[in-house]
Amino acid sequence: GVLGSGDFARSLAVRLVCSGFKVVVGSRNPKRKASLFPAAAEVTFQAEAVKKADVIFVAIFREHYSTLCDLADVLAGKILVDVSNNTEISHHKESNAEYLASLFPACTVVKGFNVVSAWTLQSGARDGNKQVLICSNNQEAKRTVAEIAQVMGFTPVDMGCMSSACEIENIPLRLLPAWKIPISLALGLFLCFFTYNLIRQVIHPYIREQKNKLYKIPIEVVNTTLPCVSYVMLSLVYLPGVLAACSQLYYGTKYRRFPDWLDQWLQHRKQIGLLSFFCAALHAVYSLCLPMRRSHRYLLIETAVKQAVEKKMTIWVEEEVWRMEIYISVGIIALGLLSLLAITSLPSIANSLNWREFSFIQ
Amino acid sequence: GVLGSGDFARSLAVRLVCSGFKVVVGSRNPKRKASLFPAAAEVTFQAEAVKKADVIFVAIFREHYSTLCDLADVLAGKILVDVSNNTEISHHKESNAEYLASLFPACTVVKGFNVVSAWTLQSGARDGNKQVLICSNNQEAKRTVAEIAQVMGFTPVDMGCMSSACEIENIPLRLLPAWKIPISLALGLFLCFFTYNLIRQVIHPYIREQKNKLYKIPIEVVNTTLPCVSYVMLSLVYLPGVLAACSQLYYGTKYRRFPDWLDQWLQHRKQIGLLSFFCAALHAVYSLCLPMRRSHRYLLIETAVKQAVEKKMTIWVEEEVWRMEIYISVGIIALGLLSLLAITSLPSIANSLNWREFSFIQ
Amino acid sequence: GVLGSGDFARSLAVRLVCSGFKVVVGSRNPKRKASLFPAAAEVTFQAEAVKKADVIFVAIFREHYSTLCDLADVLAGKILVDVSNNTEISHHKESNAEYLASLFPACTVVKGFNVVSAWTLQSGARDGNKQVLICSNNQEAKRTVAEIAQVMGFTPVDMGCMSSACEIENIPLRLLPAWKIPISLALGLFLCFFTYNLIRQVIHPYIREQKNKLYKIPIEVVNTTLPCVSYVMLSLVYLPGVLAACSQLYYGTKYRRFPDWLDQWLQHRKQIGLLSFFCAALHAVYSLCLPMRRSHRYLLIETAVKQAVEKKMTIWVEEEVWRMEIYISVGIIALGLLSLLAITSLPSIANSLNWREFSFIQ
Repeated sequence: GVLGSGDFARSLAVRLVCSGFKVVVGSRNPKRKASLFPAAAEVTFQAEAVKKADVIFVAIFREHYSTLCDLADVLAGKILVDVSNNTEISHHKESNAEYLASLFPACTVVKGFNVVSAWTLQSGARDGNKQVLICSNNQEAKRTVAEIAQVMGFTPVDMGCMSSACEIENIPLRLLPAWKIPISLALGLFLCFFTYNLIRQVIHPYIREQKNKLYKIPIEVVNTTLPCVSYVMLSLVYLPGVLAACSQLYYGTKYRRFPDWLDQWLQHRKQIGLLSFFCAALHAVYSLCLPMRRSHRYLLIETAVKQAVEKKMTIWVEEEVWRMEIYISVGIIALGLLSLLAITSLPSIANSLNWREFSFIQ
Repeated sequence: GVLGSGDFARSLAVRLVCSGFKVVVGSRNPKRKASLFPAAAEVTFQAEAVKKADVIFVAIFREHYSTLCDLADVLAGKILVDVSNNTEISHHKESNAEYLASLFPACTVVKGFNVVSAWTLQSGARDGNKQVLICSNNQEAKRTVAEIAQVMGFTPVDMGCMSSACEIENIPLRLLPAWKIPISLALGLFLCFFTYNLIRQVIHPYIREQKNKLYKIPIEVVNTTLPCVSYVMLSLVYLPGVLAACSQLYYGTKYRRFPDWLDQWLQHRKQIGLLSFFCAALHAVYSLCLPMRRSHRYLLIETAVKQAVEKKMTIWVEEEVWRMEIYISVGIIALGLLSLLAITSLPSIANSLNWREFSFIQ
Repeated sequence: GVLGSGDFARSLAVRLVCSGFKVVVGSRNPKRKASLFPAAAEVTFQAEAVKKADVIFVAIFREHYSTLCDLADVLAGKILVDVSNNTEISHHKESNAEYLASLFPACTVVKGFNVVSAWTLQSGARDGNKQVLICSNNQEAKRTVAEIAQVMGFTPVDMGCMSSACEIENIPLRLLPAWKIPISLALGLFLCFFTYNLIRQVIHPYIREQKNKLYKIPIEVVNTTLPCVSYVMLSLVYLPGVLAACSQLYYGTKYRRFPDWLDQWLQHRKQIGLLSFFCAALHAVYSLCLPMRRSHRYLLIETAVKQAVEKKMTIWVEEEVWRMEIYISVGIIALGLLSLLAITSLPSIANSLNWREFSFIQ
């Protein structure tokens, strides 16, 4: 059974019908709404729909839950699946599912399917996440709903008892929370180093020698900025581990909780490391592009012409040659090692390593 | 119990024995075949084997199913596992498993293990897919077979009731179906743009000025072709979304099914996008290789010599310098963003994102 | 219930309390140890703790198992979870779990949680592996422990009956065993080819013509060595398949076991292939860096100056131009194909391919 006639209710009914279930839809205005639902789904009044179904998806807004109170008698003993979402994180004190359970104490409430969008329901879980997080205080009801999710082509994940409902309801509102601090950190560092390099490479020569080096901004200044950001970020990956060890030595125990800021920092190391790798990879690509530029070509020809006119036959500087060769080869080796690190942070690779292997590579 | 003495029957017996099961093999000629099976497996006549076993793997061809009809009495009440595959997609009207079920109405038929090759069975599921798709009308029998698959080291996946058998039997015959249209599209576009660029960069100068530029074919012509293909493919990723929105506006409803061609197109967006990324990445590598070429070196030296002989000291063209710098830096940023998109399309990354995060990145 | 007061016992108690379980800790010195455990966990004497709990985690060393013998009576009928690890692979004849089971025949012993570190338990399974491998002879006990693992946020994996305990105990001690031979092979090949190229490109010109080419060591010599290693490794990926086919033809049967060395070799093909790809990718990056070097710049200018002084206007050698163009374009195509191969070897991609698709791409 599906209560409601919105987008989500409709997609849910379509999907359930396609997966071979008998679907009955309860609406306050069945005649007008029937055309929206697939022909195989029976659209009727709410009370009748509830009577015919064992598992009822409540696809209406939290604000309208109380309108169902008239149906309390027919709902008794049924499994109610709360599929609702909020528009803000932790907007209400109790989760929608717990609120529904408090309204209908005679029903078994299961939270689930809220992490799935109406579009995914209808088109099948092709891209993105196939997981459906489910929680309930009743094991049997949870298993029933999990089996329905499985048949519909999703991967049910048991999230334990009802107290997890709040967490499940917040998931679809989440927007890469672990990346916010690392990204702003990277942007901040980039701005600082970019300004410094801009002054040093473009503004300073302009003021001192009136040389126009503005063409250096898009590539050369960016390219000297990226490795600085990458280095600082990489050191920020390893610094909190050292601080944590120092704190443990200072307090003489490893059973003391780290201060909150250190804990947060320790948990963001993976994201900081990946951003450091991203900057290093961009630096590599920028550096490889240097000889492709017109300016590189012009400078080369100018030097050659100058040498030829002055009939200087040799310009080989052993020290500069060596500095460049070593610089490049160290850079390539560092990039190769960072790539290995980045690859092992892919979830499917990390899952195939044991703890000892993971820390060995890190 | 295993009925049959082919490759698959043999590998199945080996694997079952290794996983700690007691295996009895039924063959029409047990004496001659016994040497093929591991010593721990008992090889006997079919009727006897069936009597001793509760779960029977039917590892014989569909054409020979009818030869089992004599065993109908002893088979009654047992679980039959249909492991057969077809040689063509949807060759027969009903699936092999449904045909087997119709021959032995007193047995419980479970479809499974057909997606696994004999080689994988024997050597263990090291590479490739570890999933075993299982379907049956009987929940209990399905669970029994799923547990056997688990102990054998595979990941059983419940595919619902018997009507999915046809789909499961077609899976091993599938050959990247979602990639066929995108790849032919990419090849078609490549050919068109390649011909155009060949005429423009090689044939036209040859006819007009008798200049031999054939050396440009392997790298320069390909390199100007790739970004064109990449751009067109990228626009084809976003176009169907716009068309779908227009169709919804035109019909004034989002509950109308899209026409088939648009639906197909919408479903191939991911593959088209990945091919677009692949072309863009190849273009990047080709461009980076340009300064490595002999022809680049010769042209550079020739220009320098010409300048030196004519004693022209400066050849700096500010506009060309800027065009190249901006062109390269925009290219690098675009490649970086496309890489992020490509990485989030990896199944294990996509699984860790919620819907909002996924559409934010896309 | 948790028996023990070490690091692991403590982290386990913290995690169980956080997951909503009632935890009772058994210690030989409850008063001194109570401060180490979270306030919500009750810390008491071992006998009392055992009485109150149904599932008991035995977080003590194998050497001290015998100290629990006094508790045999109260332990009878309970589920004991053996979480212990060894310090050496296959140190004892029987696994710790089997030893525990032999000490307490009246208990149901389940092996599990040993692959998880104390740190992962406490901080949540954010990075690395979330799998908890479980085995036991009792299905019901295994299911109970699997459900506890699930609620704690781990992914329980059923590893069958108690005889797998030894294998599970060895997992955390494993350190990339499949990579040892391929990596030593790659290093060996690298050393051989490096020495050869060093003699040819640096030492030989020095002895014959007294030319100092030492600057070639960090990049040019390494860069000519890498593709040799890559080629040999790639051929070593395909050679064992040919040898296996020959062996089958020679013996006239495919049911004969391959010799051990061939079997090992066949199983390491994936690792050898990935190392071959890694060398090829490094070779690509080194080659792309060649025009960035000072030495390249100096040689170019020197040639230009020489030509200008001698007034030679043309230096175009058609054959060299073509050789380089073809060499580079073949290299790019080969790298593109190897990248596809490497991507399909990612576990999450390989899982979405069927056997036919996987072998088609390979």
